[in-house]
Amino acid sequence: MRYDFGSDNTAGMAPAALQALVEANEGYARAYGADHVSARAADLIRQRLDADAEIRFVFSGTAANAIALSMLAWPHEAVLAHHAAHICTDETGAPGFFGSGVGLIGLPGFSGKIDPLALTAALDEPEVGHRQPPAALSLTQSTEYGTVYSEEELRHLIEPAKLKGCGVHMDGARLANAAAAGFDLTQIARLGVNVLVFGGAKAGANCTEAIVMFDKSLARRVDNRLKQAGQTASKARYLAAPFLGLLESKAWEQGAAHANQMALRLAEGFALGSPFVLAHPVEANAVFVRMPPEAHRRLNDLGWACYRFDDGSVRFVCSWATADAAVDELLEAVRGL
Amino acid sequence: MRYDFGSDNTAGMAPAALQALVEANEGYARAYGADHVSARAADLIRQRLDADAEIRFVFSGTAANAIALSMLAWPHEAVLAHHAAHICTDETGAPGFFGSGVGLIGLPGFSGKIDPLALTAALDEPEVGHRQPPAALSLTQSTEYGTVYSEEELRHLIEPAKLKGCGVHMDGARLANAAAAGFDLTQIARLGVNVLVFGGAKAGANCTEAIVMFDKSLARRVDNRLKQAGQTASKARYLAAPFLGLLESKAWEQGAAHANQMALRLAEGFALGSPFVLAHPVEANAVFVRMPPEAHRRLNDLGWACYRFDDGSVRFVCSWATADAAVDELLEAVRGL
Amino acid sequence: MRYDFGSDNTAGMAPAALQALVEANEGYARAYGADHVSARAADLIRQRLDADAEIRFVFSGTAANAIALSMLAWPHEAVLAHHAAHICTDETGAPGFFGSGVGLIGLPGFSGKIDPLALTAALDEPEVGHRQPPAALSLTQSTEYGTVYSEEELRHLIEPAKLKGCGVHMDGARLANAAAAGFDLTQIARLGVNVLVFGGAKAGANCTEAIVMFDKSLARRVDNRLKQAGQTASKARYLAAPFLGLLESKAWEQGAAHANQMALRLAEGFALGSPFVLAHPVEANAVFVRMPPEAHRRLNDLGWACYRFDDGSVRFVCSWATADAAVDELLEAVRGL
Amino acid sequence: MRYDFGSDNTAGMAPAALQALVEANEGYARAYGADHVSARAADLIRQRLDADAEIRFVFSGTAANAIALSMLAWPHEAVLAHHAAHICTDETGAPGFFGSGVGLIGLPGFSGKIDPLALTAALDEPEVGHRQPPAALSLTQSTEYGTVYSEEELRHLIEPAKLKGCGVHMDGARLANAAAAGFDLTQIARLGVNVLVFGGAKAGANCTEAIVMFDKSLARRVDNRLKQAGQTASKARYLAAPFLGLLESKAWEQGAAHANQMALRLAEGFALGSPFVLAHPVEANAVFVRMPPEAHRRLNDLGWACYRFDDGSVRFVCSWATADAAVDELLEAVRGL
Repeated sequence: MRYDFGSDNTAGMAPAALQALVEANEGYARAYGADHVSARAADLIRQRLDADAEIRFVFSGTAANAIALSMLAWPHEAVLAHHAAHICTDETGAPGFFGSGVGLIGLPGFSGKIDPLALTAALDEPEVGHRQPPAALSLTQSTEYGTVYSEEELRHLIEPAKLKGCGVHMDGARLANAAAAGFDLTQIARLGVNVLVFGGAKAGANCTEAIVMFDKSLARRVDNRLKQAGQTASKARYLAAPFLGLLESKAWEQGAAHANQMALRLAEGFALGSPFVLAHPVEANAVFVRMPPEAHRRLNDLGWACYRFDDGSVRFVCSWATADAAVDELLEAVRGL
Repeated sequence: MRYDFGSDNTAGMAPAALQALVEANEGYARAYGADHVSARAADLIRQRLDADAEIRFVFSGTAANAIALSMLAWPHEAVLAHHAAHICTDETGAPGFFGSGVGLIGLPGFSGKIDPLALTAALDEPEVGHRQPPAALSLTQSTEYGTVYSEEELRHLIEPAKLKGCGVHMDGARLANAAAAGFDLTQIARLGVNVLVFGGAKAGANCTEAIVMFDKSLARRVDNRLKQAGQTASKARYLAAPFLGLLESKAWEQGAAHANQMALRLAEGFALGSPFVLAHPVEANAVFVRMPPEAHRRLNDLGWACYRFDDGSVRFVCSWATADAAVDELLEAVRGL
Repeated sequence: MRYDFGSDNTAGMAPAALQALVEANEGYARAYGADHVSARAADLIRQRLDADAEIRFVFSGTAANAIALSMLAWPHEAVLAHHAAHICTDETGAPGFFGSGVGLIGLPGFSGKIDPLALTAALDEPEVGHRQPPAALSLTQSTEYGTVYSEEELRHLIEPAKLKGCGVHMDGARLANAAAAGFDLTQIARLGVNVLVFGGAKAGANCTEAIVMFDKSLARRVDNRLKQAGQTASKARYLAAPFLGLLESKAWEQGAAHANQMALRLAEGFALGSPFVLAHPVEANAVFVRMPPEAHRRLNDLGWACYRFDDGSVRFVCSWATADAAVDELLEAVRGL
Repeated sequence: MRYDFGSDNTAGMAPAALQALVEANEGYARAYGADHVSARAADLIRQRLDADAEIRFVFSGTAANAIALSMLAWPHEAVLAHHAAHICTDETGAPGFFGSGVGLIGLPGFSGKIDPLALTAALDEPEVGHRQPPAALSLTQSTEYGTVYSEEELRHLIEPAKLKGCGVHMDGARLANAAAAGFDLTQIARLGVNVLVFGGAKAGANCTEAIVMFDKSLARRVDNRLKQAGQTASKARYLAAPFLGLLESKAWEQGAAHANQMALRLAEGFALGSPFVLAHPVEANAVFVRMPPEAHRRLNDLGWACYRFDDGSVRFVCSWATADAAVDELLEAVRGL
């Protein structure tokens, strides 16, 4: 089976990440994040975001998101998110586990973007004791369906949420792809996001994500919080070094730009050379295609791993590692279906 | 500051671990643990333990222990452990967090080993509705104070606990050191341990530990459990490969044997060439020394990181990376205090 | 404002419940449920159900349901329920709180009854690590929309669920109304329900509900579980006595029969003497009516408390206390809208 | 068996409480605490405390304490309390359950009062990531061992705790007994207590306790919090009415004064007419006696329920219902041992 397009976590570490990890392996280092590599990687992230923030590195996006949300909402409150957001559909209820029962309110919207009217309607619901009222808004950038919010679109979601007292979380597992698509990272803090998950794994690192707390009050006793949650790395350099390598070399952005380009190439191939229609605009590194079960099965049988999503379309994802030739081979297989 | 003896997680990855990680980085791999490296690493662990078991790799010992305990005890029950066990003193209450309020009952005993009489007394307490009755026994091998349980000692703790219906967890963060000290790993399953944490980080890996479920009923839906707990690696090969490298090369045991030897050398130096008395038998890779605050402070000022423990002694830990010369330098510094 | 029809918890205790409570107040009683009143009330419930079971009295339906579900599903699992079930919409996420993140999967179906095909589809979903797989089925009898499952309908839901290994919970907050509508209580255990909440408050008691564990393995250490959950009554007689009074006198069933009769009278009045159409069959003690916002508002302004539900209809509920005259007054007000 | 002295929850409701409950039973009432009885009972409590506060009525002291603490401490933080406090020893770990793993740090001190030096030492511990740092101080008034803090003693505990940023909780399950012993209730708010549990059950009510939030910020969305925690009474009048009756009639204080007086009478009897020494000063309604196991057993055999506590002494508790004659009968039995 070929996993080139199965997900963006089937690729390995990008060379810059691996090299930095190997270099960081030398000698002794202070444990639990008090090392130099962690400090420098955090600095580079702050530079990219042009903002001050407390930053910690954790092992998984699931934990990063769930812990960030637990900072914003009590168990008797809820988080507003797109109904297809990763936190709603793919994390086995982690927000409820880390948040001790915190609720999720799924909002509609085309192609993974929350519909502002649906958000407003949810925010305007009168509060009653027997429901979990919203305390946080969670946004995914780029979205689960491969689209990218514009700054303006984000503003129209964040402003009403903040007016109602909600905190704002951004799931940036694929933030690099959004950046490569033109999204200006320095606007995240300015738009009022309180806590961002700055993605590593899907951008060419190993399993590492950064929790970026622009709102530093959220960072009070965060080291205790992370330790208790099993997310404190004793050998923290292995979480920070890949970020360091990717950011110093700019491979973080460049790999994402390559991934996005490969997705476009793949999308064009589908559009022009196959009967399969695109299900969503291709703005980042994923291509969603309307494909009947039979064709999907045959493609799998030909050795190409790809999965059907909740909207009924089949997803193909590109990464820093996707080869032009692989795109062409896949398209050829598709044409032959 | 020199961190050689501060902990056994200040050292980097051992060469065999790093090399395996670099090799595993090649090409695409199935995500979430369905890759070949994970499968082979699990096989090697089963071989070492001479037992069948379900095995999963997670990111931290804190999570591994807390999740294992949550399999054995309900929130309204408690876990019996040595009062100085890592789960009791150094994990920010992680068992209570992952176990939604599960209790910890700290038991006494010299040098980190549970006193069998104290265990029996706790097991014999009549059950009442307003206390959390014990549902699990947690053992640490080698112990927090650098001692190693004999098979016989373990049997005298495990048998009464199992008679009372308790499950048994073993925290093996330093299991390699116990093995290097002569403890027979193939006895763990036979003694009736239900779930073992097979240590990676302190044995020369990056941040990776294996949860070994001898009792396979505990593994029901364990992938959902781990995903929800933020402990499923999307790029799982980076958790498995270092184990693979360490176990194939036997560096897992050899590094621990080296660490233990260095600890003995250090202990002899303290005993023969310093006024500082050993606080505990030195059976694994840690040396605990009775040292007045003033001497401790001066040692720190000389650049040697070392920490005071709950029993009032100062701890020095050796690892696969500890150099003979470093031991000698430390001892020279100690003699000059 | 008149609360006669606002809910079935706006009425007080029925005379038989109050009298039993007053009688039980005499003298000293053992605390924490070890009293004679609790024992006798439990016996009467077992008689009604013609089944052996462990029984405990708790303070609220929310707690009773959430705790019962926490016996059946782990945090990384989910509970299947009608999307309009009380546990899904009116308990502020209590199942997730008591179940530490346990998921809820809302199923469709007309008038509050789960559609068997929707249930089968949910049970047939392939299990994946990143979703919470179903571990329990929750049924409400009588339903949130005032309908009553037949034995046959329940069998067609329970059987496939049990075949897939799910436990079964029944929310019987209005079980008395179901019984008064002809549902045979002795079938509950035979159908395979594992744990039942036997309703008190809506049947004329104060705040008290009984958790009935037909599956006695669920009762292991249940006293610890309830104490930890804040649901152990120190003066337990006040939870048991009202049940005793209602069951000895048969007021439990008779009050429900009266409530159902009043609902029918009200429904007939709506059907024959108003332009407002019934939204659901009237089989128990609630009447749901399609009523435009303006009419609803005017009815409220006339002093009649009644609330709009998630399906858009307006609910009127009858209880043991509902007077014929009140029904007539309400209908007159409705006719005058 | 006679339960007169077994606990102060073996007595029934005092006449004033029962009468108010019976009166409140008349007619319809708004559900979920929006009724007049709840409002008036809260007013009377505010009067007694001479302070503004948000007040809610819940079903059990265990829940009241655990929920109050969950307002003050995150899961990764801890609560400081006397090691013999009810929350530490008698609530099956409820603070950890409602607080999702929150820690308890037990402090020493004679006769149930926290030693100020021990508190200061705990507050002065340097914070580290791997321990749960204190976020709240919990005080019990009157204490678990029947003593009463003076205003001055409380000030010396509360001030250093607040200086370190801790919130303060007071468990007032026996607050009426403290008041009857001369403790000025109007000082509670002035001393800086953030949240008080104002006891009902042990003062002659049924199972009802009031959570008094002097710090109104703690009350944000408290109705959602309580509903989720299973502590919202649908028929709230039954929680509020007994308070109303007790407070309007002053039976709340008078019953406690009687209980204290009976305890003194009992204590004198032990001191003057038995070989059994008092273990603690008798300042409220409980008498603790040093009594060998054999004597204790014989007393039980004679039909007198009484229990041995963690300090090794045997406890006798008086209540509003304790009869002079019962004290004399018990003392006669004691003399005959």
